[in-house]
Amino acid sequence: MDKESFIYSQFTSKLNGDDGAVLGKMVLSKDMFVEGSHFKRAWLSLEQIATKSMLVNLSDAVAMNATPKYALLGLGLPKDISNQEALKLTNAFKSSAAKFGVEIIGGDTVKSSLIIISLTIISYLNNGKAVSRNGAKIGDFICYTGELGDSLKGLKALQNGGKVASNSRFVKPNLRTKFMQKSAKFMRSAMDISDGLASDLPKILGKNSVKFDKQLSNLEFKSGEEYELLFCVSSSNLARVKNEAKKCRVKLNILGKIIKGRYKSYGKFSHF
Amino acid sequence: MDKESFIYSQFTSKLNGDDGAVLGKMVLSKDMFVEGSHFKRAWLSLEQIATKSMLVNLSDAVAMNATPKYALLGLGLPKDISNQEALKLTNAFKSSAAKFGVEIIGGDTVKSSLIIISLTIISYLNNGKAVSRNGAKIGDFICYTGELGDSLKGLKALQNGGKVASNSRFVKPNLRTKFMQKSAKFMRSAMDISDGLASDLPKILGKNSVKFDKQLSNLEFKSGEEYELLFCVSSSNLARVKNEAKKCRVKLNILGKIIKGRYKSYGKFSHF
Repeated sequence: MDKESFIYSQFTSKLNGDDGAVLGKMVLSKDMFVEGSHFKRAWLSLEQIATKSMLVNLSDAVAMNATPKYALLGLGLPKDISNQEALKLTNAFKSSAAKFGVEIIGGDTVKSSLIIISLTIISYLNNGKAVSRNGAKIGDFICYTGELGDSLKGLKALQNGGKVASNSRFVKPNLRTKFMQKSAKFMRSAMDISDGLASDLPKILGKNSVKFDKQLSNLEFKSGEEYELLFCVSSSNLARVKNEAKKCRVKLNILGKIIKGRYKSYGKFSHF
Repeated sequence: MDKESFIYSQFTSKLNGDDGAVLGKMVLSKDMFVEGSHFKRAWLSLEQIATKSMLVNLSDAVAMNATPKYALLGLGLPKDISNQEALKLTNAFKSSAAKFGVEIIGGDTVKSSLIIISLTIISYLNNGKAVSRNGAKIGDFICYTGELGDSLKGLKALQNGGKVASNSRFVKPNLRTKFMQKSAKFMRSAMDISDGLASDLPKILGKNSVKFDKQLSNLEFKSGEEYELLFCVSSSNLARVKNEAKKCRVKLNILGKIIKGRYKSYGKFSHF
């Protein structure tokens, strides 16, 4: 068991282990975004750092079929960050939050040798129905949205001293908010692809396995921080989900079918 | 304006700027606890680090007259932390939370070169009444609980290569949960002393000043991370609060009286 799974295994709350914790109609989610682990300052502008960290956090709410409404911002900042630089960060937090109708209602600022962003997102379930990671049944189709691989491609370019375009998936995730809202009622389970399919697939499969319909490249399989949706849908609802994807102009990929057996993971993407 | 105040000034939500954000009967609070800024590993055991970070976070809820119920735990851990060490942390998080009836319902674990603890506490208002920082009126008494100075004394000893006892205030804050629950209805405003009186006093005074009844030493005035309560009470309610303090065996200090004028701050404690 890796360290992250080990730590999760220590917290056995029935509310735990999903993209967010459900409290009545509220969903609470929290992701940290840390310099040196998730980004280097040379790779992303301060605006890009703040925007990506906000989107990454909102993604959890979207994947659970919730509409984010409030955020708490925990910010660790090195001494050498000027007020003007801090302003770049705070403006980007505010504008990226505002685009989703989210208000920053509190938080904490501390001195730190690294830039640390810890967001807590408070969301409300759409139609009162959480779509969790669990629930896939034998015979369900397992699907994902969009294209995979661009985020890892961007990361590798940066690691090799190259540059990435500002519309690269590594810089700016593209959340499938509308598609999720429209399709949630047809989904059996869902999550966002944050650690890469190789690592996230076992989480949605649970004790089941998958018969692949689609061949994936190593890049597609291992690329993390994609924030595309990974979800399971019954065969009777597949046409409805396909229809919503078409209306929302979201590419829908059928990865395969859920089958009996235990899926064997082929690796883990863990940032860099 | 210091950087922290500058950053707060960028977020103008009316829900913001207190120890926690109030959403209906719920209070959400969030504090980060970062290696190198709040502690060094040589100073505190892993259990002490986890316990202090939990207490520091619960303190915000207590100071607003709320009962903490759930926590989200964001944890940044260096590679060199073993599973056994992680277990020490998680056990201390769980046991310190459980002592206050708090359940850890979610969070996030990331790799980081520093130990980072980011807790979000979900609390419910006692009697539905939040006690905020604002609200002091001219003529109110301004009071604090307990003794101040021990935390800074402990910090200085550690910085000079010395040791501190495990019951030092620097190691383990002592929350005034019962006293706050009993006295909240008599208080005009309240907060916890986290940055030191020198820095926290202006926050509760707002546009007012104070006529000191009590002479404070420099140590008492500047010592942060005390997590004692600082609060304002009308002269007609002072006897009631004194009575509750007596029943709860909490030392009550009358610092002075709120007067017209702008209080001039004499410095800022900002961890180390």
